[in-house]
Amino acid sequence: MGNTFGHLFRITTFGESHGGGVGVVIDGCPPQIEIAAEDIQFELDRRRPGQSRITTPRKETDTCEIVSGMFQGKTLGTPITILVRNKDTRPQDYSEMAQVYRPSHADATYDAKYGIRNWQGGGRSSARETIGRVAAGAIAKKILQQAAGVEVIGYVKRIKTVEADIDPDQVTLAQVEANMVRCPNPETAEEMIDLIDQTRRDANSIGGVVECVARQVPKGLGAPVFDKLEAELAKAVMSLPACKGFEIGSGFAGTQLTGLEHNDEFYTDETGRIRTVTNRSGGIQGGISNGENIVLRAAFKPTATIGKPQKTVNQAGEATTLAAKGRHDPCVLPRAVPMVEAMVALVLCDHLLRHHAQCELLTE
Amino acid sequence: MGNTFGHLFRITTFGESHGGGVGVVIDGCPPQIEIAAEDIQFELDRRRPGQSRITTPRKETDTCEIVSGMFQGKTLGTPITILVRNKDTRPQDYSEMAQVYRPSHADATYDAKYGIRNWQGGGRSSARETIGRVAAGAIAKKILQQAAGVEVIGYVKRIKTVEADIDPDQVTLAQVEANMVRCPNPETAEEMIDLIDQTRRDANSIGGVVECVARQVPKGLGAPVFDKLEAELAKAVMSLPACKGFEIGSGFAGTQLTGLEHNDEFYTDETGRIRTVTNRSGGIQGGISNGENIVLRAAFKPTATIGKPQKTVNQAGEATTLAAKGRHDPCVLPRAVPMVEAMVALVLCDHLLRHHAQCELLTE
Amino acid sequence: MGNTFGHLFRITTFGESHGGGVGVVIDGCPPQIEIAAEDIQFELDRRRPGQSRITTPRKETDTCEIVSGMFQGKTLGTPITILVRNKDTRPQDYSEMAQVYRPSHADATYDAKYGIRNWQGGGRSSARETIGRVAAGAIAKKILQQAAGVEVIGYVKRIKTVEADIDPDQVTLAQVEANMVRCPNPETAEEMIDLIDQTRRDANSIGGVVECVARQVPKGLGAPVFDKLEAELAKAVMSLPACKGFEIGSGFAGTQLTGLEHNDEFYTDETGRIRTVTNRSGGIQGGISNGENIVLRAAFKPTATIGKPQKTVNQAGEATTLAAKGRHDPCVLPRAVPMVEAMVALVLCDHLLRHHAQCELLTE
Amino acid sequence: MGNTFGHLFRITTFGESHGGGVGVVIDGCPPQIEIAAEDIQFELDRRRPGQSRITTPRKETDTCEIVSGMFQGKTLGTPITILVRNKDTRPQDYSEMAQVYRPSHADATYDAKYGIRNWQGGGRSSARETIGRVAAGAIAKKILQQAAGVEVIGYVKRIKTVEADIDPDQVTLAQVEANMVRCPNPETAEEMIDLIDQTRRDANSIGGVVECVARQVPKGLGAPVFDKLEAELAKAVMSLPACKGFEIGSGFAGTQLTGLEHNDEFYTDETGRIRTVTNRSGGIQGGISNGENIVLRAAFKPTATIGKPQKTVNQAGEATTLAAKGRHDPCVLPRAVPMVEAMVALVLCDHLLRHHAQCELLTE
Repeated sequence: MGNTFGHLFRITTFGESHGGGVGVVIDGCPPQIEIAAEDIQFELDRRRPGQSRITTPRKETDTCEIVSGMFQGKTLGTPITILVRNKDTRPQDYSEMAQVYRPSHADATYDAKYGIRNWQGGGRSSARETIGRVAAGAIAKKILQQAAGVEVIGYVKRIKTVEADIDPDQVTLAQVEANMVRCPNPETAEEMIDLIDQTRRDANSIGGVVECVARQVPKGLGAPVFDKLEAELAKAVMSLPACKGFEIGSGFAGTQLTGLEHNDEFYTDETGRIRTVTNRSGGIQGGISNGENIVLRAAFKPTATIGKPQKTVNQAGEATTLAAKGRHDPCVLPRAVPMVEAMVALVLCDHLLRHHAQCELLTE
Repeated sequence: MGNTFGHLFRITTFGESHGGGVGVVIDGCPPQIEIAAEDIQFELDRRRPGQSRITTPRKETDTCEIVSGMFQGKTLGTPITILVRNKDTRPQDYSEMAQVYRPSHADATYDAKYGIRNWQGGGRSSARETIGRVAAGAIAKKILQQAAGVEVIGYVKRIKTVEADIDPDQVTLAQVEANMVRCPNPETAEEMIDLIDQTRRDANSIGGVVECVARQVPKGLGAPVFDKLEAELAKAVMSLPACKGFEIGSGFAGTQLTGLEHNDEFYTDETGRIRTVTNRSGGIQGGISNGENIVLRAAFKPTATIGKPQKTVNQAGEATTLAAKGRHDPCVLPRAVPMVEAMVALVLCDHLLRHHAQCELLTE
Repeated sequence: MGNTFGHLFRITTFGESHGGGVGVVIDGCPPQIEIAAEDIQFELDRRRPGQSRITTPRKETDTCEIVSGMFQGKTLGTPITILVRNKDTRPQDYSEMAQVYRPSHADATYDAKYGIRNWQGGGRSSARETIGRVAAGAIAKKILQQAAGVEVIGYVKRIKTVEADIDPDQVTLAQVEANMVRCPNPETAEEMIDLIDQTRRDANSIGGVVECVARQVPKGLGAPVFDKLEAELAKAVMSLPACKGFEIGSGFAGTQLTGLEHNDEFYTDETGRIRTVTNRSGGIQGGISNGENIVLRAAFKPTATIGKPQKTVNQAGEATTLAAKGRHDPCVLPRAVPMVEAMVALVLCDHLLRHHAQCELLTE
Repeated sequence: MGNTFGHLFRITTFGESHGGGVGVVIDGCPPQIEIAAEDIQFELDRRRPGQSRITTPRKETDTCEIVSGMFQGKTLGTPITILVRNKDTRPQDYSEMAQVYRPSHADATYDAKYGIRNWQGGGRSSARETIGRVAAGAIAKKILQQAAGVEVIGYVKRIKTVEADIDPDQVTLAQVEANMVRCPNPETAEEMIDLIDQTRRDANSIGGVVECVARQVPKGLGAPVFDKLEAELAKAVMSLPACKGFEIGSGFAGTQLTGLEHNDEFYTDETGRIRTVTNRSGGIQGGISNGENIVLRAAFKPTATIGKPQKTVNQAGEATTLAAKGRHDPCVLPRAVPMVEAMVALVLCDHLLRHHAQCELLTE
């Protein structure tokens, strides 16, 4: 339980950091979608370790195998299985962690819950699990693009206290990919990279904020009450490793405005489409997309695993000190960008299908 | 779809603001739990309109009828249905809204999605829908209390820019209920009440932040990957009307610390229990509760419906002006407190059952 | 758990035989469907007790109230709640059953599972629960009719050993409703009625077989593997009270043929449509509808509650004798017909939506 | 959708007959269960092709790889992935089927639903898909055995018209495995084998009935209403390829008895346990297990693919004749036995967890 996400476009991820590999089964994918392994690999490469000097040095090509669900380059409508083998594993780096709990990591809670744990590299709690999400997200993006021209673009908005000024309505993927920190503002990007470099040298870690925009989202996606679009997005994004906060549109800052200041007035544009003048709603009203850009932000804490020595206890509860030897990211933000995009795409794709089923059966 | 929440302790809410009534069906409730109608009514009374001068003046006693699932004061293990009739309805107050879209409300998106809408008082998008959640939450609280001594306490942390200093480890329900704004800091509460009074007189609205703590939560609740406990809580809370942001533990502020500053060091307390010195994790690590207090915050935007005139359009897309006549809250925060508590209790209760099923079958 | 059925067109039933009432919440219903209370009442009247001398004499009009989800005669797309109050309750008739287990009834297993039981009239295990199913089925039928012209017709095929010759391709609802046993073959119907009359006088009970046909089902409904259309139908029908067997198409008898005899040869009809010459597949191949009539049969055991004295035990395990005093059907078959139809309609409607979502998003 | 089964012990199968392989992801498995690859391989060997002269001659060892979810021989509580590669594939044998529809097979319906189909060996509709079920079933059996001593034994009850006399209360796995047709009555087994041999030589096929018993099932498993234990079992078994009918306990034959003849009288045995004298209920009353042996039967039609020429059409709707060249079973029954056992074990294991969650949280 808990390893499946989505109601109609439904993914199940599997695998641990060390062991046979990680991957995903995608059920409910529409048939006849052309997908090349390169489409998936492009996104996996944005996520993979070792892609730059500011990410973990673990060497993984994360080459994906499509095990099932495709035929002659097209989806069959049956489950698509994507498998990535673990290659550059170094269990010996983690032998100390078989006994000692890393502070603010999942070691102690996994032991408390299951009474057993694959201590090699974090096991199931490793960010390696997100390979399956990113691979599935690549397919979701393709469907969204094909069905409605939707594009989903994430980027680093803030590293620690260094915040970039970025216009979510205009930002492009090329701008995001133009530098290793994935901040589409080039000047701020340099500052961020310097800060991460410094942090790495200090054997410490830092966090920040990823912002993500979805453009060209059709009106009407999302379901009232529990499956409000913002609630589904919140769960999706908050389920990523190290995520501690989520906000949509005006978010926490919006609580400091009055209703008169905060409300988005309606108008009708030149094409006759009902629009809003401002977008403090972040593209969602009453849990349902209103056709404006969906804009959300996610807070990622500083990486828990750090090289600096910290006080902790071992499984027996005895006090000890730990200085992590495993390879880890000084800052997860650059690699979190494709993860956030993937989760947003999965939610939108699922709700695109759900909306089509309920509201477009008899009205077409 | 979208009106059901939970995997084992599963609720389905129904009903619109105006019409036959609102309510909930609770499936999966353990049998033989003693529940009095008063337990449920106590929570409904904290949520109901007209409870004080700073809430909407709609007069509803929100008296609940338990239609099924109970016998001789105890749960049967079969679906519990709780029904609250709508009484003080004034459809005529909303006749203008049959045509005109309230800014930042759900009117336009419901029309876009369904092509039909019960425009009387917001229909399904009305906060009246939360009656079912709060009623179910009352039962979830009872189970949590009985099974593990868990207590869930929410309170108003901030109104607009007026923020209260409150210790989540010590706060009591009596302190929260001691004033009409549900802020357990009496001085700040006065300030908040004044601010809401002023806003009401201005025919405007304001928002703020609710904080919620769950204490005595057993270690081990939550499931890795998509159903991480913080992800489930995020969805639960973000599905409440007007909620725009969610954070757990250190949240957004935590992204400004380094890993060394942010990590929660482990120690063993006098009873031999492994604890953390600080609680920036907010009681959850790797998606699983660690036994520390779960602390979360939710951002609620200023109420969308205000008396001041605003520019908008009607269904035909023609520009017009709207000044709402319906009864509404100048600030939803005081009534949001029991809603947040309910959602938190529902998530914890569901995961208590899930954990018991998977991890306590063979190890007992 | 276990009180919800369907993935997209999803119903949750609630209520016990004695108590506040029984009903259903329907989630995921397409919006803008015109439904009159009479549409629902028509089906409830086919199901209700006391409709003829061969059914239980319990006097219930089973008048339904639509509590939510409708506005100005049309569905809103939000949950539809239908409530039927219990009126003619006689708990005193069941007082003996508070202690004594009725053979082949649910009394003992409910006690074993829950440790508590509403012994008045069977509680949740009463066939009264099916009111919610039949009400929801009425709406599902309407959608099926409107979207694709599907009609679902059930009838009594056999009572004990009296079997009727009926052509599923030609049978009409009027023929079924022409007599109180719901067997569209008038001569056999008379025989069946006599047999049930005789059984009632004997304070005994009998069972039989209901056959059901769905015509004009579009090709392509059903999902491979676990949610094969016949598997979903099997679960739906086998979940009805007293049902002990299910078969589709050739069923058990088909196992006595060779492959050459059993296979349905393909041909192309005058309209260019690919058809099968025979229909031993019962309208489903590989779990997916092939456009031929879906034909299935369900075995209903003789009613467990009988007036004749039987050996049994009480809760303490002491041997005793029971002769039921409550009102009960000598044969459930006539009332099972609308129940089977409802379950078949619910499955088809759910899969109509599912198919539309997955396979008709990009190909339209 | 449709490739996932179970609510708490939840499996997702994937893969096609020809392509990268087939397998299963198991989510929700309790942690710390010792499982050896041999436990799984034992069941896969009972299912695999080429195991005897009366099964398909396709040569597959069906060797399984456990990709994830295990550590040092024990389950981790995280998803268990089992992968079996396709080896002996002969796509050329199926080239004709790229165009021509096999009667009573899934070719035409897959084309109608998806507009695309992997025609090599049946693709997703191949019985090879059941490898994932049987592998997961092996783990479910282990849990059932460990938690409650449950054993699940299936066997061939009838081949075409040759029916065996077998006592479900006494039959052993050794007796079942003693011959290649898996009929524990040695004399009838010989007759069955002769009949299958004859059929194979005729390039024809035959069907029959599998019976399955689950012994030592605890009282209380199953959930009222839609998830009645017999309904869940019906869906599970009817989702197997070629299954056309299902019955529990007295099944269709029981409809020919009166209530007095059919009811199972209660008594208290020497250990104080409430039992039934007869078991026409098949171990389930009111949808809940009563502690007696669960006995069910499944009808399997004659294999659709036969060597004899049959009339059919091609994708263009043109009339043609097909004599299958691919390798296929003259009778699926011997290999269906482990499949039925697996599905029964999966249902019971899922409901064991569900019952533990709801009814054993507070009462322990």
